[in-house]
Amino acid sequence: LIEAAVAHAQYYKNELLVEPMKRYITLIHNKFGPSEGQLKGYPGHPEIELALLRFYAATQHQESYDLAKYFLTERGNPKGQDGKHYYDYEAELRNEPPWQRPDCYPENRSYWYNQAHAPIQEQSTIEGHSVRAMYLLTAVADLVVLSDSGVAELSSSEKNMWLQTLKRLWANMVDKKMYITGGIGAIKQWEGFGLDYFLPQGTDEGGCYSETCASIGVMMLAERMLLIDLDSSYADILELCLYNNVMTSMSLDGKKFTYDNQLASSDKTKSERNEWFWCACCPPNVTRLFGSLGGYLWHHTVEKDQVFINVHLYTNAELTFKVGDDTTVHLKQTTTWPASGSVSFELDVSRGSLSVTTRLRLPAWSKGHYNLEPPAAGLRNTKGYLELTPEYLAQNPKFKLSVGEFEPRFIAPHPYTNQNTLALALGPLVYCAEDVDNPWETNHFKDVVLRSSPEQVAQSQIRDDATGHEYVQLQADCWQRDASGHINFEEEARILKLVPYYYRANRGGKGQMRVGMVKGGGTESGHVNVFPETLASA
Amino acid sequence: LIEAAVAHAQYYKNELLVEPMKRYITLIHNKFGPSEGQLKGYPGHPEIELALLRFYAATQHQESYDLAKYFLTERGNPKGQDGKHYYDYEAELRNEPPWQRPDCYPENRSYWYNQAHAPIQEQSTIEGHSVRAMYLLTAVADLVVLSDSGVAELSSSEKNMWLQTLKRLWANMVDKKMYITGGIGAIKQWEGFGLDYFLPQGTDEGGCYSETCASIGVMMLAERMLLIDLDSSYADILELCLYNNVMTSMSLDGKKFTYDNQLASSDKTKSERNEWFWCACCPPNVTRLFGSLGGYLWHHTVEKDQVFINVHLYTNAELTFKVGDDTTVHLKQTTTWPASGSVSFELDVSRGSLSVTTRLRLPAWSKGHYNLEPPAAGLRNTKGYLELTPEYLAQNPKFKLSVGEFEPRFIAPHPYTNQNTLALALGPLVYCAEDVDNPWETNHFKDVVLRSSPEQVAQSQIRDDATGHEYVQLQADCWQRDASGHINFEEEARILKLVPYYYRANRGGKGQMRVGMVKGGGTESGHVNVFPETLASA
Repeated sequence: LIEAAVAHAQYYKNELLVEPMKRYITLIHNKFGPSEGQLKGYPGHPEIELALLRFYAATQHQESYDLAKYFLTERGNPKGQDGKHYYDYEAELRNEPPWQRPDCYPENRSYWYNQAHAPIQEQSTIEGHSVRAMYLLTAVADLVVLSDSGVAELSSSEKNMWLQTLKRLWANMVDKKMYITGGIGAIKQWEGFGLDYFLPQGTDEGGCYSETCASIGVMMLAERMLLIDLDSSYADILELCLYNNVMTSMSLDGKKFTYDNQLASSDKTKSERNEWFWCACCPPNVTRLFGSLGGYLWHHTVEKDQVFINVHLYTNAELTFKVGDDTTVHLKQTTTWPASGSVSFELDVSRGSLSVTTRLRLPAWSKGHYNLEPPAAGLRNTKGYLELTPEYLAQNPKFKLSVGEFEPRFIAPHPYTNQNTLALALGPLVYCAEDVDNPWETNHFKDVVLRSSPEQVAQSQIRDDATGHEYVQLQADCWQRDASGHINFEEEARILKLVPYYYRANRGGKGQMRVGMVKGGGTESGHVNVFPETLASA
Repeated sequence: LIEAAVAHAQYYKNELLVEPMKRYITLIHNKFGPSEGQLKGYPGHPEIELALLRFYAATQHQESYDLAKYFLTERGNPKGQDGKHYYDYEAELRNEPPWQRPDCYPENRSYWYNQAHAPIQEQSTIEGHSVRAMYLLTAVADLVVLSDSGVAELSSSEKNMWLQTLKRLWANMVDKKMYITGGIGAIKQWEGFGLDYFLPQGTDEGGCYSETCASIGVMMLAERMLLIDLDSSYADILELCLYNNVMTSMSLDGKKFTYDNQLASSDKTKSERNEWFWCACCPPNVTRLFGSLGGYLWHHTVEKDQVFINVHLYTNAELTFKVGDDTTVHLKQTTTWPASGSVSFELDVSRGSLSVTTRLRLPAWSKGHYNLEPPAAGLRNTKGYLELTPEYLAQNPKFKLSVGEFEPRFIAPHPYTNQNTLALALGPLVYCAEDVDNPWETNHFKDVVLRSSPEQVAQSQIRDDATGHEYVQLQADCWQRDASGHINFEEEARILKLVPYYYRANRGGKGQMRVGMVKGGGTESGHVNVFPETLASA
């Protein structure tokens, strides 16, 4: 409802929903707040916070901002209500015995499920239900974004504290609790994070929930982080989630979905999609994401006569915005991405005196390599963004970026995951093997071995006649591990055919699929990028 | 109490406790049983069943046998009481909402915690609380043992069904849910079994409870299995548990204990012992085990003028029993086991016409190799038991067995555990590394790499002056893994010193310890025994 009111305020200049919403928010804030007589509570599922901040940004309704900030500050206070944790206070009101609890709480008082085990600023690791965690941190990031953009001030110490919290929890998530597909949330019971480095590939190994909505939440958070700190590592994760854990959640024909997205199938949990879910949050969330995808592609800022356009994602798209009443800026990108790394740009500015800077993201896997036509000398690459100056753009309104290293590459999870696996990727796409392409496989590729020799990987352009879909298939040499763990590399290699992970479960088969194969040998890791890939590792 | 009554009946021929106990058991059976008006219940913690069967064996009190068998047969019946599972029936009586449950139930109706999710005979995998599971199956095995020994008959189909159940659940446990130290129960929350092959080494990896009592339960079950089927694989597991997961639970000075026994420490869970526990089941259980150890060493049977002595464990011990009123059989074994594989035997039979057969266990790691002095031609090795005939023993009442392959060896868990580790063992002892011997280590040996080259492993006899304890230390070449998983074998190897696992946490240090090190390379598995070791793999 708040989002609808925001839309009304922003796009329709329509007060029909805005005024009642203000009154409703005031009503909520009368109930919850810091003063005597107000409850010291906050939602079990963080979500309203980011909506309140969006509503504030659209309407400047101060109580919306105050209420959001109150929820974010009060959350996890161990003595918030009558000297007790608010959830304890509520449980006592309900006369609950300690052994009564929701199914998602593995133990009594598992308040980390709701990110309420400690005040947000004191949390050192990302915990609990993944979607809740992402929506919560997105609201925290919005506080900082609103401050940076001058809409709602924070003291510098408070801003710094929220920013450190965001960076600490983001780093813990990406470095230690994220799958190479951008999935988060290893544990089904609480649809959320497990221990550091606990990232089993499938349910038969005890995990891999990787909910679609959670990766959409990662994208929401990454989009805010890019506003706060233009670092391509945020955009890399944003793109990783989009093309892999999120895009795999819908079938090519748009009729079937997944909720959780494991990296390996098993007899009990095959690789397949469903038409509907009892709790169907993911399909409409995908729809919402695709409907707002334009907001993730690029950001632009206008500072007097200076315009900055930061391009995060490459696809076929056009950006048009006005500077003042009389100037229009138009940027168009044309590409076959993610099938290739070439992107053509066309910039059109209706007033010559406007100074336009365009920053183009270089993904970590490009290792900072690129080609630009026409060429430019002395280009700056700052945190993975290549900066095209107003001078270059004035001379070259048409230019073409070719992102480097657009070749099959090997990715391994961190050694502490105990996975000992190798996966293949091409550009932003992570690959998987399916039995439909490898009908000899009967054990979910559990014993299929890859070695990290790039020269052993071939690629073919495929057009599937049934679906009309075009994609790049990879072919890699593979071997077989026996029950004692022995791999006989003297045996002739077999060809393993791999397809993009998003493409899985679209063409029938037995539902056998795997992303990470057994890593053969242990000494040739020079060719392997450990997840998360970073520019520094180049 | 029942056990005390058994002792009274067996050893003191004292009816003081026996008669009241019979009346008490009758009272329980009046309450629980198959007839109308009786409750269709059974205990949440299986334990009374094996006590009832021991009581029956000592007293022939029929109701004890009937009640035990009723509990074992009724358990897990989905429609036992008023068309409902008995636990559901009880929960309804208590007016419990479905989200009210004990802390050990991760989800509602986790009746697998109590091995009550299905009738025992229909259970395909071993599940739930490990101690409960072992005590339960020990009672099941006792049913078969009592039938085999003619004390209480079972129909052959019923006996076969129980036997298949025992073998199926034993195999699942040993092959897929047991640590190389004989520990079972990977999951702390329910002190019990996880998924097949889910065997993380420490709490920082999400598991490894390995309760002391659970391994004592394995020993109890293995002892019964050896009565049912003389196969050295049962005795191998019995010995593995004794010398590793059980013996490590008490400090050398007998004053400190462990409850759970992880294979690797972490900053949060160091390798250490405690003086007391809130629920102190393990220390007295160890005491009870050590007090009854004689019953685990050997079994003897008398069939008319034929005597069979099956020797399962080697240590310094003497066995004396009477055959009839006038004949005494005495077998003495002398050895430094587990420090060496040589065992001297002395058989003394007071009547020459008695035919004595002795069967000596060959552990799987001996690969069936042994030396016998004086030698004997054409000895039969049946399922890992070397059979010394009456003829040989009559000529050689003194003989000496030297078990082969008593050399350091490498053990790896099954590849599906995703552990990718190598451990060292010597005879029945599994080894670990501690920081007290390797003070250069600061990360719990998490990145220490071993390669399976037996020629790189040296051994030294050590006598610890502080404790007076003597043991064999192993020294192996080791390397270091970096954060990308890379191992540089070109670097000079460092020496890793290892001690028996039972010996850990006796000499101070920082509490850093690990059993399974990173397995360097993947191709040299010819030297590695995959757990569980079997004679067939020789």
